[in-house]
Amino acid sequence: MIPFPFSAIVGQEEMKQVMLLTAIDPGIGGVLVFGDRGTGKSTAVRALAALLPPIEAVAGCPVNSARLADCPDWVTPGEGMVTKPTPVIDLPLGATEDRVVGALDIERALTRGEKAFEAGLLARANRGYLYIDEVNLLEDHIVDLLLDVAQSGVNVVEREGLSIRHAARFVLVGSGNPEEGELRPQLLDRFGLSVDVVSPNDIDTRVEVIRRRDAYENDNAVFMAHWQGQDADLRDRILAARVALPLVASDDQTLRDCAELCIALGSDGLRGELTLLRSARALAAFDGAGAVTRDHLRRVAPMALRHRLRRDPLDDAGSGTRVARVLDEVFGA
Amino acid sequence: MIPFPFSAIVGQEEMKQVMLLTAIDPGIGGVLVFGDRGTGKSTAVRALAALLPPIEAVAGCPVNSARLADCPDWVTPGEGMVTKPTPVIDLPLGATEDRVVGALDIERALTRGEKAFEAGLLARANRGYLYIDEVNLLEDHIVDLLLDVAQSGVNVVEREGLSIRHAARFVLVGSGNPEEGELRPQLLDRFGLSVDVVSPNDIDTRVEVIRRRDAYENDNAVFMAHWQGQDADLRDRILAARVALPLVASDDQTLRDCAELCIALGSDGLRGELTLLRSARALAAFDGAGAVTRDHLRRVAPMALRHRLRRDPLDDAGSGTRVARVLDEVFGA
Amino acid sequence: MIPFPFSAIVGQEEMKQVMLLTAIDPGIGGVLVFGDRGTGKSTAVRALAALLPPIEAVAGCPVNSARLADCPDWVTPGEGMVTKPTPVIDLPLGATEDRVVGALDIERALTRGEKAFEAGLLARANRGYLYIDEVNLLEDHIVDLLLDVAQSGVNVVEREGLSIRHAARFVLVGSGNPEEGELRPQLLDRFGLSVDVVSPNDIDTRVEVIRRRDAYENDNAVFMAHWQGQDADLRDRILAARVALPLVASDDQTLRDCAELCIALGSDGLRGELTLLRSARALAAFDGAGAVTRDHLRRVAPMALRHRLRRDPLDDAGSGTRVARVLDEVFGA
Amino acid sequence: MIPFPFSAIVGQEEMKQVMLLTAIDPGIGGVLVFGDRGTGKSTAVRALAALLPPIEAVAGCPVNSARLADCPDWVTPGEGMVTKPTPVIDLPLGATEDRVVGALDIERALTRGEKAFEAGLLARANRGYLYIDEVNLLEDHIVDLLLDVAQSGVNVVEREGLSIRHAARFVLVGSGNPEEGELRPQLLDRFGLSVDVVSPNDIDTRVEVIRRRDAYENDNAVFMAHWQGQDADLRDRILAARVALPLVASDDQTLRDCAELCIALGSDGLRGELTLLRSARALAAFDGAGAVTRDHLRRVAPMALRHRLRRDPLDDAGSGTRVARVLDEVFGA
Amino acid sequence: MIPFPFSAIVGQEEMKQVMLLTAIDPGIGGVLVFGDRGTGKSTAVRALAALLPPIEAVAGCPVNSARLADCPDWVTPGEGMVTKPTPVIDLPLGATEDRVVGALDIERALTRGEKAFEAGLLARANRGYLYIDEVNLLEDHIVDLLLDVAQSGVNVVEREGLSIRHAARFVLVGSGNPEEGELRPQLLDRFGLSVDVVSPNDIDTRVEVIRRRDAYENDNAVFMAHWQGQDADLRDRILAARVALPLVASDDQTLRDCAELCIALGSDGLRGELTLLRSARALAAFDGAGAVTRDHLRRVAPMALRHRLRRDPLDDAGSGTRVARVLDEVFGA
Amino acid sequence: MIPFPFSAIVGQEEMKQVMLLTAIDPGIGGVLVFGDRGTGKSTAVRALAALLPPIEAVAGCPVNSARLADCPDWVTPGEGMVTKPTPVIDLPLGATEDRVVGALDIERALTRGEKAFEAGLLARANRGYLYIDEVNLLEDHIVDLLLDVAQSGVNVVEREGLSIRHAARFVLVGSGNPEEGELRPQLLDRFGLSVDVVSPNDIDTRVEVIRRRDAYENDNAVFMAHWQGQDADLRDRILAARVALPLVASDDQTLRDCAELCIALGSDGLRGELTLLRSARALAAFDGAGAVTRDHLRRVAPMALRHRLRRDPLDDAGSGTRVARVLDEVFGA
Repeated sequence: MIPFPFSAIVGQEEMKQVMLLTAIDPGIGGVLVFGDRGTGKSTAVRALAALLPPIEAVAGCPVNSARLADCPDWVTPGEGMVTKPTPVIDLPLGATEDRVVGALDIERALTRGEKAFEAGLLARANRGYLYIDEVNLLEDHIVDLLLDVAQSGVNVVEREGLSIRHAARFVLVGSGNPEEGELRPQLLDRFGLSVDVVSPNDIDTRVEVIRRRDAYENDNAVFMAHWQGQDADLRDRILAARVALPLVASDDQTLRDCAELCIALGSDGLRGELTLLRSARALAAFDGAGAVTRDHLRRVAPMALRHRLRRDPLDDAGSGTRVARVLDEVFGA
Repeated sequence: MIPFPFSAIVGQEEMKQVMLLTAIDPGIGGVLVFGDRGTGKSTAVRALAALLPPIEAVAGCPVNSARLADCPDWVTPGEGMVTKPTPVIDLPLGATEDRVVGALDIERALTRGEKAFEAGLLARANRGYLYIDEVNLLEDHIVDLLLDVAQSGVNVVEREGLSIRHAARFVLVGSGNPEEGELRPQLLDRFGLSVDVVSPNDIDTRVEVIRRRDAYENDNAVFMAHWQGQDADLRDRILAARVALPLVASDDQTLRDCAELCIALGSDGLRGELTLLRSARALAAFDGAGAVTRDHLRRVAPMALRHRLRRDPLDDAGSGTRVARVLDEVFGA
Repeated sequence: MIPFPFSAIVGQEEMKQVMLLTAIDPGIGGVLVFGDRGTGKSTAVRALAALLPPIEAVAGCPVNSARLADCPDWVTPGEGMVTKPTPVIDLPLGATEDRVVGALDIERALTRGEKAFEAGLLARANRGYLYIDEVNLLEDHIVDLLLDVAQSGVNVVEREGLSIRHAARFVLVGSGNPEEGELRPQLLDRFGLSVDVVSPNDIDTRVEVIRRRDAYENDNAVFMAHWQGQDADLRDRILAARVALPLVASDDQTLRDCAELCIALGSDGLRGELTLLRSARALAAFDGAGAVTRDHLRRVAPMALRHRLRRDPLDDAGSGTRVARVLDEVFGA
Repeated sequence: MIPFPFSAIVGQEEMKQVMLLTAIDPGIGGVLVFGDRGTGKSTAVRALAALLPPIEAVAGCPVNSARLADCPDWVTPGEGMVTKPTPVIDLPLGATEDRVVGALDIERALTRGEKAFEAGLLARANRGYLYIDEVNLLEDHIVDLLLDVAQSGVNVVEREGLSIRHAARFVLVGSGNPEEGELRPQLLDRFGLSVDVVSPNDIDTRVEVIRRRDAYENDNAVFMAHWQGQDADLRDRILAARVALPLVASDDQTLRDCAELCIALGSDGLRGELTLLRSARALAAFDGAGAVTRDHLRRVAPMALRHRLRRDPLDDAGSGTRVARVLDEVFGA
Repeated sequence: MIPFPFSAIVGQEEMKQVMLLTAIDPGIGGVLVFGDRGTGKSTAVRALAALLPPIEAVAGCPVNSARLADCPDWVTPGEGMVTKPTPVIDLPLGATEDRVVGALDIERALTRGEKAFEAGLLARANRGYLYIDEVNLLEDHIVDLLLDVAQSGVNVVEREGLSIRHAARFVLVGSGNPEEGELRPQLLDRFGLSVDVVSPNDIDTRVEVIRRRDAYENDNAVFMAHWQGQDADLRDRILAARVALPLVASDDQTLRDCAELCIALGSDGLRGELTLLRSARALAAFDGAGAVTRDHLRRVAPMALRHRLRRDPLDDAGSGTRVARVLDEVFGA
Repeated sequence: MIPFPFSAIVGQEEMKQVMLLTAIDPGIGGVLVFGDRGTGKSTAVRALAALLPPIEAVAGCPVNSARLADCPDWVTPGEGMVTKPTPVIDLPLGATEDRVVGALDIERALTRGEKAFEAGLLARANRGYLYIDEVNLLEDHIVDLLLDVAQSGVNVVEREGLSIRHAARFVLVGSGNPEEGELRPQLLDRFGLSVDVVSPNDIDTRVEVIRRRDAYENDNAVFMAHWQGQDADLRDRILAARVALPLVASDDQTLRDCAELCIALGSDGLRGELTLLRSARALAAFDGAGAVTRDHLRRVAPMALRHRLRRDPLDDAGSGTRVARVLDEVFGA
């Protein structure tokens, strides 16, 4: 069944915004989606991928290479190109490292002289999304490994002198319910953006959600036709933003603003300001603006900084509130 | 021995109702049966399956395909069709993932070029029921996997680039005693309906249970003949409801009612109202009604919502009582 | 060495009664023997089996089939019939599941087309007794499996599409010291009868025990000859009871009595009254009575219900006392 | 180096007595030696075995069979008989079950039709002693298995329908420091005798120990020659007692005494009186007495009963003291 | 992408100093870098390695041997020499011992007479750096092993009589956040130097960091050209210091100073003063000084001693403060 | 690099004394070295082994046999003799039992009839030292096994009826920091001697340590030449003591002294006095004395008894102090 249309998602504006920013600049880094069960986190990722234009890939290439020249040397590509939807790969909780990074059959390699590599989930996620439900229940070293690959865009599997590498450019989307286990701050900091989602609490919104879901399930063709147009508009806007992105300017004051916000929030390290700057640029591109403004910073700051705050035992405000308060202090309310 | 007749089950009306709803619309999702030992949970599932008409399946097809064209490509079907009872597959507590989803023999596949797949319990459950006694003692990731497959209707086994898929449409029925361990809320929410069963507490009912059980064991032929007719009537009513289901109407007020009930109960996410709507429709179909009414909602609400409530430390009423109270508040007593 | 004669066991009347009932109607279900070490639990099981008439079995059949036609299809039987003692199989604590249910050699089956099944302990126990010392230390899922097989009388081993089955009708006898670990109520309820054994506390009884044991060990031939006759009488009485069993009547009042007792005791589920009825019938048959009376119920109620009571924090009487008290309330003292 | 002479052990009278009783009647059951480190427990077992006459065994027979006819069918014996010292086998703490009971190579057995059995430690211990240092640190199921074999005198290894058996008559000697972990009462009760050993606390005794040990190490030939005679006398006395044992009488009063002592001590089960009787007979045989007397009972009661007492929270006397007190109550001080 | 230029790292003077000292005298021992996430620890190591002159190595030699004669005997070298960057090898948290030290294939070695060794991470780190992120989460025995090899400069793999050895001279750099687990003092002491890094807390510095990072990412070619010169100057200074190092003098008073500082700090063992002396010599060489002065000692003392202090419950000053205080006491403020 | 000269070790007199005693009489038993990190424990063992004369061994013999006739039967020796340094074998913490005792390849042995044994670390340690850093972190059963072999001088590997044995005479030296875990008293008692080492606390000593270490590292040839003479003198004295040892007398009073000291200290068992006597004899031999005197006892008593004391909750003096106090009480201050 075709995924639910991205435009038909009721509310959840911040989650949708985050998703769109990663579609414009996948280099922003992974996304954490915190929130209750049943709030459509998985639906949103699949909807976004279905919204994006399909990719052209070399036939038979397990890493979806865009050009024959990009295929890794251990691949025997087929003939011509194929068109595929933007991949969304699920990483199940119990997955072994071999299944994630790919398995290198040392014995075969040594005895027959072949590079015997079975591509893993990271290969299949190249040029798309890697989705992990309940990422907080995943083992730390796997999360670490995923973040490393996501950042470098390359998956390297080395075993006993043999070395396999392939492109693995994807956006890591992890969802989790913070009540069921937390990520170490070390790992939190390595995600680019985060977003909290909650169930809507007014009847009209909820009725609308049910109505659309029911129409999607029971009257699929009509429903999809109805939303096709809005999804197409959004797709065009993303493609335009990708083109505009390298041209978006950011002046010195913007950099000072980034630093001042992070110091005021007491966030460790410097990943905070770098992500803030980068996602503000993507938002400006989406808005069609030529330069980053304080308004852009203000809108992305919660997503970029919320998960990088130290727990403050004397301040029991939520992290979103703390970011908002600091924004008011630094920029004026 | 032929299973105990469904109609001969004494009392346990809610459990029987839930079972019948899943027989009308298997898409309602899994069922949780909470309750004391010895209350006939396993008996009821087997009785329901025996009540349903047998299925026609391709001979030699391990996934009970209804048509030759539906057989997965890794199956070598036999000649013609066979008739089988609706399958009820037990998932034993210690089952490995391979035994559940099926085992893919990578080596054989690679060396001989054959798709070497040994179908698992999910294959055998296709078009029937998968029963898990003491589901609360099962490992979370297995429950998760089962719910994923039950929802999508497809079992996909992927290992190192090889991919096997087959239909796996079944109703998951899990029984459990909540005193012996709980499911995580995340998992509870993914079950469609739930029901509490208790031992009857009046002598006449219990004598009737013993009498029927004793007759079933010691005078089987006479006993079965006696109940055959009632079971046949019930079977006919189920089949009629299946036909009527797509035609059952639900107006806007019904949707508002669903949303209002869920907000009043503070249930997270939106699976609550969707299940409520869907099971009310199945009940209306069973009743031969053309549209969902508040009465239908009222009758299925406890089954659809009871297991989705957050624990409320200030309200020690049972979840069934809380649902009933909210029904009175929203619909009037 | 020939086992100790059943008739020569001093005292322990309830344990002997329970054993005899299972010999008359093996369908009563498993037996739990609670008690101190050194009270002759294992001795009693072996003595009972030695008391029963030997069985006729197909030569070379690992499941002791009574007729050539009953041999499972994976067995290559020898010539003619052999006579064997009623089997008593010990299930050691560390036994693997393969060793219990039998091991299916998948590879051999697939590559050579043979059904490669090595029968396990359950096969050897068919038509006899399966004895587990310290059953409370066994893993729950093994106990569960044993109770399933004991109830259905069939052992099914399924691995990757292959299915082996054979008759496994046996009485499960589990002994245990409740001070060293308990069974879950779920499992307790699945045993048919239970009995508490204690060491005798008067000198004459104990001297008699020592005397008989000493004679058995040091003057075996004379001792065995002495008790032969009494064992033969008992054997005849068991065989007669087996014949009479299907003819024993139980009227409506008996059923009401069963239900009333169970409700008064607050036992969950309905296995209590069913076992009560069944064991009372076996006792009536042993007594040569034509119908079940309140006296029969009174005599078997402790064995059938004692292990099904919920722990009552306000009532620290032992479970035996609670059953006796309720018997007095319901039937009059 | 030849073991230390049994007669040259300074003091430790009770330990030596227990050892001698097991040499006269190995059927008394296993021995537990509790005590501090460095008190010569291991030395005593080795000394006893060296004191006993060597055994004649079939050449090449791994179970030391006394006659060609006794060799198990899976043994290919050599030519003629060999003379060996009475075996003392150490069971190391980390030993696997296979190493203890022997390993049955199923695959070889099935494919080549040979009984492929590699005998284990139990085979080598046949007709001798099995010594376990720190038996309280051994896993319970291994201790259980050892006690089973020691009691039945037969080691049976059954795997998937194959069955290997061989004689395994040995005395199990377990040493342990109760401060470092305890055996379950269930297991304690299955040992026949127990003894507490402590370091001597007067200088003359300790000097004598050092002197003898030093002479043994530095002047071995002279030292061994010196003690040869005393060891020979003891050996003759053991051999005479073995002959006399079956003729030792025990009257009714002796049985009553055994029962009365055990009831007064509140020991569970009946293994206490049986062991008491048996070891008193062995002591009488060693003394050259024709019948068991109260004096014999009195002397062996501590060894036979001490480890079978329930812990009594109101009585903090050691178990030896409690046995002595009861002996005085029952027999008069 | 070429690593970030070492000279372009803003601030973090102590970390840079420590890195430079290890480049001058790799024998100083491993380095521990404590500090918050995101402070550029990993960046600094990679920058340093990129700053150092590339190494000349035998083609095809897995241990980067500088001369054909240095290749281990199990290597089949290629033709001629190759130029490689100074290696920086990452040791991932989950790495097995085989992957770290190399894997010796015993079976192949024995059956084919070949030395079948697959070189590990230690081989690849020879003549470079081994970097461990979150070293405090690594298993102790692996850290121990790494420190042994780093100290001896030789990796020896011995299995069952076979012995493989190769040069493994590298600087071990471990980073860690002490809030997430600590190293045992035993291991801390075996690292040569340690350094604490913190995020800068003034806006101008942080803006400068962002600006440079942004330029590095978005305008790479211009940025690298800008810093090339400064990196070259630093490289020359390191190379000059390597030449001067053996000629740096240290008089008796310097030795007394070292000992006095360590006694005053109560550091266990003598590794403290030896490292202090050695790193002061390297600093003197970097400064172009002919002899070690108190100023050199003062500058390296915190790095060399901070991680060797016993925790003092009466003194809650940080270890850096305690070193500074003792420096003032011993040398005068 | 040649190990540090034994004579050049500054201070640490007791540790050096203990090492020398084991060089004179390796039968004294293992040595425990307790103490802070960095106090040169490992250095001292290596220095001692380098001080001892090299051993002559059969070429190609993995157990360093001194004569062709001593080679185990599973060894295929080479031609002639070789000269080797006294072995010092490190036992790494993670070593498996197979790697320690050697691995017996059962399958090869059975199928090819060869004794397929790969010698382990114990073989390589024969005639030398086995060093275990942090012995208190080793698993108990390995320590136990090592002490057994060290005491008997023979390593026996038995698997399934196959038996391999070889000489394994070595001195076990275990170092450990008691603050990081303790050995069970049972194991402590089995070590012969123990010594506490601490860092020197006066400047001159420490300066001397640094000076020598620095000279050893930076001016090796001159340094080694300087200490060669002193090492040679010490070697001669050890060799002379080995010859004299069997002739050292010990009268009755010496034995009484040993016993009295041990009783006064309340040490369990009798290993204390035996070790005291043996090490006093070795010291007398080293001193060139013809008989053991009270002075010898006094000097070795702390090393021989310190680790055998029970913890006394009412006496918080260290064990060394308690030994000294008892020495004064028994011998006079």
